Amino acid sequence: MLTKADLVDIRYGVQGFIVHKPWAMKIIKQIYRMFEEELEKTGHEPVLFPLVIPEEYFEKEKEHVEGFKPEVFWITEAGDEKLERRLALRPTSETAFYSLYALWIQSWKELPLKLYQSVAVYRYEKATRPFIRGREFLWIEAHCAFATRDEALKQIREDMENTRRVVWDRLAIPFLFLKRPPWDKFAGAEDTYAADTILPDDRVLQISSTHDLGQRFAKVFNITFVDKEGNRNYVWQTCYGPGVWRIVAALVSIHGDDKGLVLPFEVAPIQAVIIPIYYSEEAKSVLEKCEMIEGILKRSGYRVFLDLRERTPGWKFNDWELRGVPIRIEVGKKEIEGGYVVIFRRDTKSRIKVKDDELLTMLEKLKDDILLTLKKRAEEYFNSRIVKVQTREELIRAVKDGKIVFMPFCGSEECAEDMKVNLEGLRVRGTDIFHEEGDYGLCTWCGKTARFMVYAARAY
Amino acid sequence: MLTKADLVDIRYGVQGFIVHKPWAMKIIKQIYRMFEEELEKTGHEPVLFPLVIPEEYFEKEKEHVEGFKPEVFWITEAGDEKLERRLALRPTSETAFYSLYALWIQSWKELPLKLYQSVAVYRYEKATRPFIRGREFLWIEAHCAFATRDEALKQIREDMENTRRVVWDRLAIPFLFLKRPPWDKFAGAEDTYAADTILPDDRVLQISSTHDLGQRFAKVFNITFVDKEGNRNYVWQTCYGPGVWRIVAALVSIHGDDKGLVLPFEVAPIQAVIIPIYYSEEAKSVLEKCEMIEGILKRSGYRVFLDLRERTPGWKFNDWELRGVPIRIEVGKKEIEGGYVVIFRRDTKSRIKVKDDELLTMLEKLKDDILLTLKKRAEEYFNSRIVKVQTREELIRAVKDGKIVFMPFCGSEECAEDMKVNLEGLRVRGTDIFHEEGDYGLCTWCGKTARFMVYAARAY
Repeated sequence: MLTKADLVDIRYGVQGFIVHKPWAMKIIKQIYRMFEEELEKTGHEPVLFPLVIPEEYFEKEKEHVEGFKPEVFWITEAGDEKLERRLALRPTSETAFYSLYALWIQSWKELPLKLYQSVAVYRYEKATRPFIRGREFLWIEAHCAFATRDEALKQIREDMENTRRVVWDRLAIPFLFLKRPPWDKFAGAEDTYAADTILPDDRVLQISSTHDLGQRFAKVFNITFVDKEGNRNYVWQTCYGPGVWRIVAALVSIHGDDKGLVLPFEVAPIQAVIIPIYYSEEAKSVLEKCEMIEGILKRSGYRVFLDLRERTPGWKFNDWELRGVPIRIEVGKKEIEGGYVVIFRRDTKSRIKVKDDELLTMLEKLKDDILLTLKKRAEEYFNSRIVKVQTREELIRAVKDGKIVFMPFCGSEECAEDMKVNLEGLRVRGTDIFHEEGDYGLCTWCGKTARFMVYAARAY
Repeated sequence: MLTKADLVDIRYGVQGFIVHKPWAMKIIKQIYRMFEEELEKTGHEPVLFPLVIPEEYFEKEKEHVEGFKPEVFWITEAGDEKLERRLALRPTSETAFYSLYALWIQSWKELPLKLYQSVAVYRYEKATRPFIRGREFLWIEAHCAFATRDEALKQIREDMENTRRVVWDRLAIPFLFLKRPPWDKFAGAEDTYAADTILPDDRVLQISSTHDLGQRFAKVFNITFVDKEGNRNYVWQTCYGPGVWRIVAALVSIHGDDKGLVLPFEVAPIQAVIIPIYYSEEAKSVLEKCEMIEGILKRSGYRVFLDLRERTPGWKFNDWELRGVPIRIEVGKKEIEGGYVVIFRRDTKSRIKVKDDELLTMLEKLKDDILLTLKKRAEEYFNSRIVKVQTREELIRAVKDGKIVFMPFCGSEECAEDMKVNLEGLRVRGTDIFHEEGDYGLCTWCGKTARFMVYAARAY
C-alpha cells in the first residue's frame, strides 16, 4: 500500500534506505509541525547537532556504547584520505548533546534546559521495513536536564501528554503508555517509558519513548551546576523520542482500508479534492462552479485541489481514495441545476448532498466528525484486542487469538524469556506508568507470586 | 559575533561540524519556510532522498564525480563489519535523484517534474568557517526535469525570481545574479548561474546557484520520456541550490553592526521584546501593563517575549540588541502615567514614544519601515562597492580600494588566472544573465578584444 499510495519508492539501491515521495513528505511535515508546536509550548527549543559523533564521545557511557555499537555506521575515509579517527553516524544523539551540555550548564540559572532536534538517525539493522525499521529513519529527539529528580520525573508525564496531544488527539491513534521491564530499557537509562500502539496484525509497535537517564550520563559527561545555595550537583536528565516514521506506519495501517489510506483532516496534504463531472457541452458551467468552490475553500484556509487531469472521474475517485483524501466534492450538471454538491467522505465511504450555501458549515462539521469517527473506530479495535487473563489456559487461548494480554506477572526476566519462547514471541511490554508494585496473586505463566500487572504482546 | 549572539557553538570536537543553537535554528527554520513557500507556489513538491549514495550511482557522470570525489566522506564500516561497497554521504544529490527519475519519468505526462529537499550536505573541505564553508551545511536542493530546453531555461529565471523573493524582498540582502564563466561551472553542468552578495569585507559570497544540466545527466542515467507524438527523448534538467547556511552568513554580516545582529521583522525569532522597568513599589502596575501588551501583541500574531528574567533592564537591552530583536518596548512608571510606551528600533537605534492605543498601528508601520530601512542601507553599500573600470590603472586602483569591478573582458581562462595571481585573488564571477556576447572594446587586463562585460571580485 505504501507504494500504491505513492508514499515511498523502495527501489533505491541500498537496503533500509527509502525515498520519501511528496505525499509522504507532506504528511511527515505535518506530523513534525504538530510535535514541534507541542514541544515549544512546553518550553523546548530547537537545535541542530552534527550528524557525526566522534568515537571518544560515543564511548563515554559504557552501557550506551555496548547497546548501540553493533548498529553504528562508521565514516572512515574522506576524499583520498583515511581519517585519523572514525566518525559515527548518529544512531541517537545523547553523547553529542551531553558533551556540550557539560559546557553550557554551569548554574541553576541555566536549568531546566530543554532542547530538541528533528532529524534522521542511522542504525545498521538487519531486517528493515519502511516506516517501521530502517537504517535511516525520521524522528525527533528531545534532551532535557533538570536540577532535581522530581522535575525529571514530571518531564516523563509531560512527554506522555505531548504524545497524546499529537498521536491520539489529532491523529486518532490509540496507545498504551508503559514503563518497560528493566531488561528492555534503553542502553544507558535508569528506566524507559514508551507508547505502544496495536497494528491490524495484532502486533504492538512502539511509537515514542522517554528515558529516565537519572544522573548516569551527567556523571560520565560531568554535567554539573551550582545550586542557589552554592553547592555543585549533577543534573538529572531525560530524553524523549517521538518516532515520526513509526507514527506514519500506524497512521497508514490503523486507519487505512482495502481501498487505501484514510487520513485525518489535519494531516492530509489535500483536505478536499474537487472532481468535475461533465460531457463537453456542460464543461464551462461545471468548471466555473468548481473554480468558485475552490476559491471559497482556499480563502477559508483549506488545502484544496481541483483535479483537472485528463482522466475519467472514476479513475480520479480511485486515485484520491487510495491517497486517503478525507473529502471529495463532486460537481456535475445535476449539482448545478439543483444548487448543491455531492460530498463523499473517505472515512465512512458515504455520500451526501450539500446545498451550495451550506458547504462551508458542513466542512467545519465534517472536519471534527471525521476525526471522531476515526477515533471511535480505532479505539474500538484497540480495546477489543486487549484482554485480561488470570490463568495459563486463558493466556494461551488469548495468544492464539492474537490478543494483547493484561496479566499478573512475577517480574523475572527468565519467566518473560520462557513466555517468549513458548508463546509465539509474546513479550512483556511493561506496566502502566501509574502502576505500583504489590501483590497481584500468582504469575499467569510461572505461578510464582505476581508483583506486577503487565501488558504482553507480540511486537515489531 | 556568531558565538556572542548565541547562534552557534564551535566547540564540538570535529572540524567543520558546528552546533546550531536555538536562536540560529529559529532563524534557519524561517528561511527554510520562505523558500519552501516560494518553491511550492511555483509547482515544486517536497521529497526526501537517502543521505547515502552508492558508489556506482555516484560515478555515472564523469565530470561530476571528478569534481566531487575529493570532497566525499565515505562510510565503509557498520557494527563490526566492513561494508561490501562504500557509501558516499551526499555532497549534493543529483546522482541519487536521477537514478530514480529514470524510473519515474516515462511519458510527457510526468513532466515537468519539480522536486526539492531541505537537507544538510557533507563535503570534506580543508578550510572551514561557520555558515560560509562547512563539512556539514544546510541548503535546499531542487531538481527539475523538462520536456524541452526552453522550459529548462525558463526554470533558471524562475529560480532567480524565487531567490529574489526571499533574499531581497524579505531578507533585504542585495545580490547579483550571474552566469559563471565556463571554468567555474558546476561539475557536470552545461552552465552555472549564481547569486553573489557582497559581505562587509568586500568579498563576494555565492548564496544560491542554478545549474543548466542540459541532457548530460539524462544521457548517463537514461532518463527518457515518450512525447505526445510517440517519440522517445531525453529530458532537459536543471538543479537549484539556495544556500540557506550562507544566507544566514549574509544576514548576520550585512545587517549586523557593532552591537550585534539586526534582524528583519519576518525572520526574527522574537519580533518584539517587552522590558519592564520598575522599583519594587511599582512592580504590580508595570507588570500588569506589560502583560496586557504581551497579550494584545500575541493575539495580533506577533512573536513577542516579556522578559522577566532577574537581570537589570540595561543588561536585557544589551542582550536583545546583540540578538537583533527588531523592536524593544519599554514600560515603566512614567509610561503608565503618560498612557504610552517607549519603542526602541534596533535598526536605527532610535527611541519613540507611542500612545497605548496606537501601538498596534505603529508596529504594522514599523514592520514595513524596518525592512525598507535595511534594504536602503544594504543597497547603498552594495552599489557603492561596485565600480565600472575601463583601464588597467582603474582596475588596479579599484582592487586596491576593495571594490567589485565591472569590466570589459576577453573571455579567456588564462587571462582570468593571471588576474587572480596578480590582483590579490580577484576572480571573474561572470556576466549578467541577460548579457550577450559582443564587442566591448579591449579587455581591461590583457588588452585583447573584449567579448564580455564581467563582474570580478575577491570571493569566499
